[in-house]
Amino acid sequence: MPDKSPANKTPDATRRSERSRRAILDAALELVGEVGFTKLTIEAIAARAGVGKQTIYRWWPSKAAVLFEACVPEGVDPAAIELPDTGDLEADLKTVLRATVDELTSERLEAATRALTAETQNDAELGRALTAKVLEPQLQAYVRRLRAAQRTGQVAADIDLRIALELLVGPLFHRWQTRTLPLTHAYADTVVELTLRGLAPR
Amino acid sequence: MPDKSPANKTPDATRRSERSRRAILDAALELVGEVGFTKLTIEAIAARAGVGKQTIYRWWPSKAAVLFEACVPEGVDPAAIELPDTGDLEADLKTVLRATVDELTSERLEAATRALTAETQNDAELGRALTAKVLEPQLQAYVRRLRAAQRTGQVAADIDLRIALELLVGPLFHRWQTRTLPLTHAYADTVVELTLRGLAPR
Repeated sequence: MPDKSPANKTPDATRRSERSRRAILDAALELVGEVGFTKLTIEAIAARAGVGKQTIYRWWPSKAAVLFEACVPEGVDPAAIELPDTGDLEADLKTVLRATVDELTSERLEAATRALTAETQNDAELGRALTAKVLEPQLQAYVRRLRAAQRTGQVAADIDLRIALELLVGPLFHRWQTRTLPLTHAYADTVVELTLRGLAPR
Repeated sequence: MPDKSPANKTPDATRRSERSRRAILDAALELVGEVGFTKLTIEAIAARAGVGKQTIYRWWPSKAAVLFEACVPEGVDPAAIELPDTGDLEADLKTVLRATVDELTSERLEAATRALTAETQNDAELGRALTAKVLEPQLQAYVRRLRAAQRTGQVAADIDLRIALELLVGPLFHRWQTRTLPLTHAYADTVVELTLRGLAPR
């Protein structure tokens, strides 16, 4: 990961570094969608990004590490992700799941996300690393938002929140992976509505 | 697919055919778990099964076709699958989802299922074919069981049953794929209980 602090660089060098870094992440996303994870190489990423491969090796230990960083939205620290909390749980979850629908179906990310999903099935170690670094912080943000909803009485106190969040995200990923029916905002909304009925205090 | 009718064969020939067929399906399942879909070859399946590769080409058009048949439980016509209907929806769905947990975590099938899941992400055409031939008939069985439950008043009349079934199966596949937490019968039971609360008439 590049050193973003300008302390020991001129402003121009910092700007060039940031431009190279962005070009490398974009190239990695494009290429993994085109050739899959197995055939992805640091050499090809470097060529597409217009940098030397030593530049990549200096900042990342592996192609997986490059891709992990490329999958996290720019400027976002996965550990600091929070779901919106306007006090209206249903509205907040719809906002989040609609954004997930947009990401899963985005032209820029879909092929890369499918290639990484595939590779996490073939390579359990990579799968566990991706889950720990990219997915788990997001799931923890769901747990915190749902816990707040328990405190305000919108979710029953006895609900296992790890299961509750899977009721929300599981259906979206299932439909996306199996390509059975269109993945839309209306679908995300219905998943939220039906799930919240099940989680409500009785 | 082998001709199982004994009309034009001696009983011994039929028995030998069935033994070869079973050996080929088992070999395909083992090998795809070991080497993945991309590196799986008809030659390797034939060698493992102890048959000539022409035997395989005579019965199946491709390695994908062999695997599809290997993934469907022996003697089961996917189009004829029905979920249990004892009148107790919750008990019936727990039976089905517990069986899904057992399949996803079974030593014999897990590696093959992961390899096929991976390949359906890399190859959209294969994914659509597997969904249509193996998955969709099972999803239709869910729809029929849930429709029966609507008639008996256990599920609200206005529920979209395609979405209802995804609330049941989506969380299981999500947990299995992401390897976040153990996939157990207790987990399947809780998914059924929380989902049915959300589907109940109000």
